[in-house]
Amino acid sequence: MRLAQLARLKGFERLTDIDNARSIFFRKLELNRTRPIQISIKKSLGRITAGDVMATHDLPRFNRSAMDGYAVKARDTFEASPFNPRALRLTEDKKVQKNEARRIWTGNPLPSGANAVVMLEHSKETQDGIEVWTPVTPGENVSKKGEDVHKGEIAIRDGTQLGPHHIALLAALGLVQISVREKPKVAVLSTGNELVDVGCKPKPGQVLDVNRLLLSGMCVELGAEAEDLGIATDDADEIRIKILEALKKAHVIITTGGTSVGKADLVPGVVNSIGKPGVLIHGIAMRPGMPTGLAVLYRKPIIMLSGNPVAAMIGFEIFGRPLLTKLLGLEDEQRPMVKSKLTNRVASALGRRVFLRVHVVEKDNEFFAEPVRIKGSGILSTLTKANGYVAIPEDREGLEKGESITVHLFDKIGAA
Amino acid sequence: MRLAQLARLKGFERLTDIDNARSIFFRKLELNRTRPIQISIKKSLGRITAGDVMATHDLPRFNRSAMDGYAVKARDTFEASPFNPRALRLTEDKKVQKNEARRIWTGNPLPSGANAVVMLEHSKETQDGIEVWTPVTPGENVSKKGEDVHKGEIAIRDGTQLGPHHIALLAALGLVQISVREKPKVAVLSTGNELVDVGCKPKPGQVLDVNRLLLSGMCVELGAEAEDLGIATDDADEIRIKILEALKKAHVIITTGGTSVGKADLVPGVVNSIGKPGVLIHGIAMRPGMPTGLAVLYRKPIIMLSGNPVAAMIGFEIFGRPLLTKLLGLEDEQRPMVKSKLTNRVASALGRRVFLRVHVVEKDNEFFAEPVRIKGSGILSTLTKANGYVAIPEDREGLEKGESITVHLFDKIGAA
Repeated sequence: MRLAQLARLKGFERLTDIDNARSIFFRKLELNRTRPIQISIKKSLGRITAGDVMATHDLPRFNRSAMDGYAVKARDTFEASPFNPRALRLTEDKKVQKNEARRIWTGNPLPSGANAVVMLEHSKETQDGIEVWTPVTPGENVSKKGEDVHKGEIAIRDGTQLGPHHIALLAALGLVQISVREKPKVAVLSTGNELVDVGCKPKPGQVLDVNRLLLSGMCVELGAEAEDLGIATDDADEIRIKILEALKKAHVIITTGGTSVGKADLVPGVVNSIGKPGVLIHGIAMRPGMPTGLAVLYRKPIIMLSGNPVAAMIGFEIFGRPLLTKLLGLEDEQRPMVKSKLTNRVASALGRRVFLRVHVVEKDNEFFAEPVRIKGSGILSTLTKANGYVAIPEDREGLEKGESITVHLFDKIGAA
Repeated sequence: MRLAQLARLKGFERLTDIDNARSIFFRKLELNRTRPIQISIKKSLGRITAGDVMATHDLPRFNRSAMDGYAVKARDTFEASPFNPRALRLTEDKKVQKNEARRIWTGNPLPSGANAVVMLEHSKETQDGIEVWTPVTPGENVSKKGEDVHKGEIAIRDGTQLGPHHIALLAALGLVQISVREKPKVAVLSTGNELVDVGCKPKPGQVLDVNRLLLSGMCVELGAEAEDLGIATDDADEIRIKILEALKKAHVIITTGGTSVGKADLVPGVVNSIGKPGVLIHGIAMRPGMPTGLAVLYRKPIIMLSGNPVAAMIGFEIFGRPLLTKLLGLEDEQRPMVKSKLTNRVASALGRRVFLRVHVVEKDNEFFAEPVRIKGSGILSTLTKANGYVAIPEDREGLEKGESITVHLFDKIGAA
């Protein structure tokens, strides 16, 4: 059956391929990064810098010793050798004079008068002072003022996700607050008469709603904030009220369910009833996730995902993830990827991009990807048994056994 | 100079190599994982399961459609072909009778009477009902009760770090609470007369204390909780009070500063004065981080790190990280590793494991590691300019330009 026929059968006017869908969506959105906010550096772990951070002064703030040893005047050591050691007097005075040495530890300020440090292991303490075996040049073993970071230099670049080592540098520079991107607020709504909330006992035919937990978790992992809009029944008014509420408080709206023709296009219909441009794309040439829809209202993105958890996860991965990373200013942030050998032949669907869940193991320094049974996009254990996915291109009917594939990892790799 | 001489010069009885130090430390510790605690699955993202999670019932809980299409009795379709389609009546009754079909959407419970689903694309609606072109076998396109997870099966294994997809499966199984490992509490203390707290203006010779932020951040990243013990001056009583306080409330104690001979062995001395076994190792054949010390008091580990931030970071990486992952039950949790080509020759120190900070870039599908200037273990920007480190073995005098090395990544890889 041709794809156009299939699309019409399923109630879509046509299926749009993923790359087109993404480019239409992002072009219409004209997405800006979220606004910068000031927070304490103590709470900035994992946040993303908004703007370059300039050093307001030199680091180190003073010349300091880079080694344990003796602060000296370099020229007093020039002739030193193991056969002809130079003897220096030990001093504890603030200022080091000619032919004097002062014990110094890594990080200590260099005392005035001294311009170099003789390493402990290149000298020996004697009764009267020390013997130096190796000459030092001026500046040797000294961390110069500004050597780490110069005043006015960019210490941390815009768009950096702050790790402990970045925060340490900010602290050393005397910063207390830092400008970071506000976390995008993502409102997450599940729709469906069959859904009940986690904590309830489902009656026959009822299904526990796992999509809000799944999608909220994926948002939080990326550094966004999830707003739980709860469950709406398959009722246009109820869904409209939820979406209007979400448009007020969130940067992004994600819905699940009510996008396939089985639900009579419920969510896309509601979105279009609210305003323009509304639904841009509905029906995408991908599997799972064909009924995915993309919409814009009041310049805010709405991603309408399938009610099937696996399809919802892949739909979020393909459209939600790049959206959130753009809002955060993390360009091209992707899952870690690994080249693997496919262990079994798999069939695909021509004309659609198929996302195959695989389990990657490492064996003898090579990676092997075993397909996880893909029947049914509602089968949650295909996600927990897999640790990654491979995108099979639209022009392939399948992948061969032994073929080299690129796996996008969403979980850890274990040993075989 | 021989290593033993160097060790004595620096005031250590001897230097212990890293592998020995680790094995002595962990053998003495007899480390147990932290206790299991019950938490809501809604707050379990990133936590580590304590014990296998068994499925308390089947998933799906009922036979449901894996496709959009028509629920039928399979035998009614057995002879169907595009040239000889089988006509079926459409019904909306609860029960599907012989020669009947009922429209069904992915995830819907299979109506009684039906045992298979004809895909939408293998059929056509007519005035009276549908025409089926392709036969289905019993069970075809149906997700069977228990197909995803069987009752009694292990759904999630012990020691799993929970991602959104794991939490979704737990939710689908009807779980509300989950048993996870308590976060290890790590008390972090900085020592040094020269230190002032972040937020203060350092006077000449004073240094902002960045170590607590650095180490707390590294603990939090691993899933532990950091307890800030503040700064102690170089005073034995002050340090003793802090360590006694920490022994009461933390699983692990980390100190920085006061471990090199410059500070007269201050922290190791205090630890030994508190009890047995006290300091197990002091002085390690590594660079940076030689003055690192490892101790045990009341069965609790104490890691005494250098006051230099870079040395402290590497010391934590080598001893703190495996300690915390053991407490959490994450066996062999390591940094992501990448094989890279070294862009420049680097010298090393025979007899010591040298940790070289490098910046890895990707170019034409290959990774290149450029050494970041290593002079001075206090140079913080070597951490922010690097995205990984390579461990140069004790028996190497250096690494050659172009050599293939394994880089442990602590930050993202950018394009060249």
